[in-house]
Amino acid sequence: MEPNDERPIPATIEWRDGVVRLIDQTRLPAQLVFWDATTVDELCLAIRTLAIRGAPALGAAGAMGIALAAHGGEDLDDAARRLVATRPTAVNLRWGVERALASADPVAEAIAVAAEDAATNRRLGAFGASLLPAGVRVLTHCNAGSLACVDYGTALGVIRAAHEAGKVKMVWVDETRPVLQGSRLTAWELARLGIPATVLVDGAAGSIMARGEVDSVIVGADRIAANGDVANKIGTYALAVLANHHDIPFYVAAPVSTIDLRCASGAGIPVEQRDAGEITSFVPQTVSVTNPAFDVTPADLVTAIITDAGVVVRPDREQLATLMSQLPGV
Amino acid sequence: MEPNDERPIPATIEWRDGVVRLIDQTRLPAQLVFWDATTVDELCLAIRTLAIRGAPALGAAGAMGIALAAHGGEDLDDAARRLVATRPTAVNLRWGVERALASADPVAEAIAVAAEDAATNRRLGAFGASLLPAGVRVLTHCNAGSLACVDYGTALGVIRAAHEAGKVKMVWVDETRPVLQGSRLTAWELARLGIPATVLVDGAAGSIMARGEVDSVIVGADRIAANGDVANKIGTYALAVLANHHDIPFYVAAPVSTIDLRCASGAGIPVEQRDAGEITSFVPQTVSVTNPAFDVTPADLVTAIITDAGVVVRPDREQLATLMSQLPGV
Repeated sequence: MEPNDERPIPATIEWRDGVVRLIDQTRLPAQLVFWDATTVDELCLAIRTLAIRGAPALGAAGAMGIALAAHGGEDLDDAARRLVATRPTAVNLRWGVERALASADPVAEAIAVAAEDAATNRRLGAFGASLLPAGVRVLTHCNAGSLACVDYGTALGVIRAAHEAGKVKMVWVDETRPVLQGSRLTAWELARLGIPATVLVDGAAGSIMARGEVDSVIVGADRIAANGDVANKIGTYALAVLANHHDIPFYVAAPVSTIDLRCASGAGIPVEQRDAGEITSFVPQTVSVTNPAFDVTPADLVTAIITDAGVVVRPDREQLATLMSQLPGV
Repeated sequence: MEPNDERPIPATIEWRDGVVRLIDQTRLPAQLVFWDATTVDELCLAIRTLAIRGAPALGAAGAMGIALAAHGGEDLDDAARRLVATRPTAVNLRWGVERALASADPVAEAIAVAAEDAATNRRLGAFGASLLPAGVRVLTHCNAGSLACVDYGTALGVIRAAHEAGKVKMVWVDETRPVLQGSRLTAWELARLGIPATVLVDGAAGSIMARGEVDSVIVGADRIAANGDVANKIGTYALAVLANHHDIPFYVAAPVSTIDLRCASGAGIPVEQRDAGEITSFVPQTVSVTNPAFDVTPADLVTAIITDAGVVVRPDREQLATLMSQLPGV
């Protein structure tokens, strides 16, 4: 047994003396197994195959990739290029790479990035939990939990904090096609944490909102543009429209490292197209498949962005600029 | 080779001298194989397992089930009860059963119900095609094609008629979780018909609407209440809200046999809950699964209902009552 394993959910990614150890999320929920990456190429493969995914986790992975390069004597700039190219949408990956690159000691910096994650998410979780009413029935999409971070989670961090305060009646979990992060990862985390959860197909979310069974929607984010537009897992935009139609608050939970002031609006966020094989192996050759991994939700459908530096209600360019300008060290 | 097989898509269900032969839709698209039902119980099994599904096809199946009972000397009322109990939502099943029951010759009546289907759908298709602009990019959900009927299709019948008129640029096909009728059945039909099609996950539909790539949404229906509320495959309601948000027409295509004047509104339509196993085999035991097969779209989100007796724009109780009162033999 790893000492790690005594927690309900082990750390998603860790630096272990020249090796990056990560939970292989492609094997969950059937098996909790670890993947040891000893080179930048191995880590890039883990990222591309979604063995590790989730914006904050990719931030830590980016920093650890540079740490691996430094430790192994690889060219740091080339490693940075290869790492950032693995997933174009999540800005945290670039953020983590840049933090480690800018440090005189990339290994120490990567360890610090990972270590900060749990504290960041607990702060974020506490801010978010205060927004939720007692007895809340909350719907989430994809996995913005511990597995999407190093520990604790963003959207699930808010739900965990609300659960710790005795507020959570039910978590509705979109299965989240095509990769099923909801039914594979979020359901697994919630079961380990003892939080009541019900899985549904993505198409059923609107219907349970119409029945009055959803009080809040909370999702994570892969990149938040300067104007508050939010890129997140495909299907998020539809949930935002549906929440808006039913007057249900739509919250986005993300650390400030997900906010990309260099990106003016959602139109500037690259949306990764992934393999058709993720959706189907049986479509006839004359039929096409489109498989965008993400979509963009305009800021005007977002009730609030919950960050580790505070809550931004009805986000816009001015508020996000103010939030970011007040951060230490920025 | 069956003579049947020379058409691009064989008849979904046929009476063959005491045997009901149907396409086993659980085997598509990998294999086109037929299931011969010789008793009511065998036909009920085919219906419950979705070997045959789709509201108009279930109408024919209901009539043929009574024909099987009559042919085999089974008790007709008991057969009717067992058939209707297999799927609670689609009203056509009850309609087909009642038509055959009311006839002095259930076998001849069942053959007539099936024979009428193609003509019904071609009329419906022509009405619907006239509503679509040239170069239309149309999104559909689930399968309301030939396989959901005996022949030609309802929502896909409209698309086929529009394609025959050279109007269709692209059909967006929701994969339609959990049973994947879109990627398994609709994509297969469109490929056989040479109509351009692209499959996407259900969660991506809102996003392609936001990109301006959808001109119309067309779906089928399992039951239409007297006030115009529409029960259809889970995910339909979300599409209606999304179409409304983007000012995209939302059309429902169904034969008049799908309109249930005995049902005042959508609140009175029973929604079948199906096995959790359709969604996932790997959710932890402490996590629940909800798997409603259908949802209800309120009439005020429906641009028009396209029937074989004409188009009802902005459907309501009065218009549907008028339409139904003008039918021959009603």
